[in-house]
Amino acid sequence: MSEIITSPNNPIIKLVKSLHIKKYRDQYGLYFVEGWKMVKEAIAENCPIHTLIYSEDFDIHKLELDKIKVDIPIVCVDANLFKQIGDVKTPQGIIGVLKKEQRNIDYVLDRNSGFWVALDRVQDPGNMGTIIRTIDAAGGDGVVLLEGCVDPYNPKTIRSTMGSIFRIPIVKADNSNDFFLKLRERQAHIITSDMNGENIFNWQGAKSGSTKVLVIGNESKGIRQEIHHMATSTVSIPIIGGAESLNASVAAGIMIYEILRKEGKMGQEISCIRHRDML
Amino acid sequence: MSEIITSPNNPIIKLVKSLHIKKYRDQYGLYFVEGWKMVKEAIAENCPIHTLIYSEDFDIHKLELDKIKVDIPIVCVDANLFKQIGDVKTPQGIIGVLKKEQRNIDYVLDRNSGFWVALDRVQDPGNMGTIIRTIDAAGGDGVVLLEGCVDPYNPKTIRSTMGSIFRIPIVKADNSNDFFLKLRERQAHIITSDMNGENIFNWQGAKSGSTKVLVIGNESKGIRQEIHHMATSTVSIPIIGGAESLNASVAAGIMIYEILRKEGKMGQEISCIRHRDML
Repeated sequence: MSEIITSPNNPIIKLVKSLHIKKYRDQYGLYFVEGWKMVKEAIAENCPIHTLIYSEDFDIHKLELDKIKVDIPIVCVDANLFKQIGDVKTPQGIIGVLKKEQRNIDYVLDRNSGFWVALDRVQDPGNMGTIIRTIDAAGGDGVVLLEGCVDPYNPKTIRSTMGSIFRIPIVKADNSNDFFLKLRERQAHIITSDMNGENIFNWQGAKSGSTKVLVIGNESKGIRQEIHHMATSTVSIPIIGGAESLNASVAAGIMIYEILRKEGKMGQEISCIRHRDML
Repeated sequence: MSEIITSPNNPIIKLVKSLHIKKYRDQYGLYFVEGWKMVKEAIAENCPIHTLIYSEDFDIHKLELDKIKVDIPIVCVDANLFKQIGDVKTPQGIIGVLKKEQRNIDYVLDRNSGFWVALDRVQDPGNMGTIIRTIDAAGGDGVVLLEGCVDPYNPKTIRSTMGSIFRIPIVKADNSNDFFLKLRERQAHIITSDMNGENIFNWQGAKSGSTKVLVIGNESKGIRQEIHHMATSTVSIPIIGGAESLNASVAAGIMIYEILRKEGKMGQEISCIRHRDML
């Protein structure tokens, strides 16, 4: 901790810079987060931390690291060099390199309950991050990434999650057909959305208790046809005015809250919330 | 139309470039939109067009201008020069310079009905654009900009509206205190949101028929206290999981749809939708 890194060729500097690129995030199983609020939340949520990197002008005591039991590797970097390694325009002086914690579909299938959101080819990092944040707010159980999605560990996605990335399990489904077939075998509810689907506000909802998966599609192309074929329900959000469609993360938010509202999880039946908290 | 503009000093080129800056958009009462889909929609919605500017490699017949009755000034620009005047990374070869159509608060007050969303210090252009798009989709009547909002004619806001900027009236309230006082005099419903507000899903809703204004606050600071004091209802979206809050445009979407759902405008009572369409 006493030495200040000044060389751009220092291995830890080169590591952070490489993590801007998906190829290296995949190769090393690492990603980075920026800013003291994000780093503090990562620590609070017990995320596996590889290294903390701070600028020499950052007040490291702010993080109250002495209160943490685990030993976190930490390095100090020259202030000018620090400015070159992150992704934001106005760096806050602290970066955390974290270990990725991706799950496979067994994480969903083994539970046989819960509310999940599956993303089909969602391409906008801001949309993906915002949807992860909404699942976290609504008390959902996790996000499943089907084929063709933007990397959830992209710095822009991470920022949009506002810390929810540390709480919401990220499940990767390499073969969505196989995933949905297994869900069907387990009597899960698979809810897709489509302009021609049933009005979600009139829809009677999915039976409580079992696994429910809401699928959100690509920003312009929607959900793949083969996934619609697997659906147990296809719903739509009514478009009353002149807009062609809603933004993907707004549509996801309305559907997530409406599905959980129908189950009484959004208020009318307080006991349902309590029950969920105990799971 | 036969001459191709090649000089960066041409007045129309200088005009478009100046419209990247709010000061000049305000001064000239103009803004610009990019891409053929946006331009086509602006024409279809009868927006007042100042000039159309297209790149020499753009197929202008795509716009079917011969089918339009009004005469639109149109200029052709050298392909390389065109690339330097817009705001997007991959220009589509067409830009429309449009006249701004901002209303003042009388536009809302004179109607004595309708559903409006008022934005208090909303700073993110993407959020503002997405909220305008959501109001359009939900069949709301317009957006009111209170003090301290980002410019709705910012190119990023315009893009996020996905064309809803051409349909949704933009009302500027220069003095929000005066605006809300006049709303109260007219028995309007003013709905603010706050963490300590009543759960929106349990809330009984606002009486149908009168003016309803939903206020959306700044992304991190929320709604100003003096606006809360003017509210007839303060609601909240339940946060069940670990996230501190929802993204502003997601929260707006959930509240807009829930308020209109409670009025039967989202499906259960088809007659209500029909009634609205006739207004």
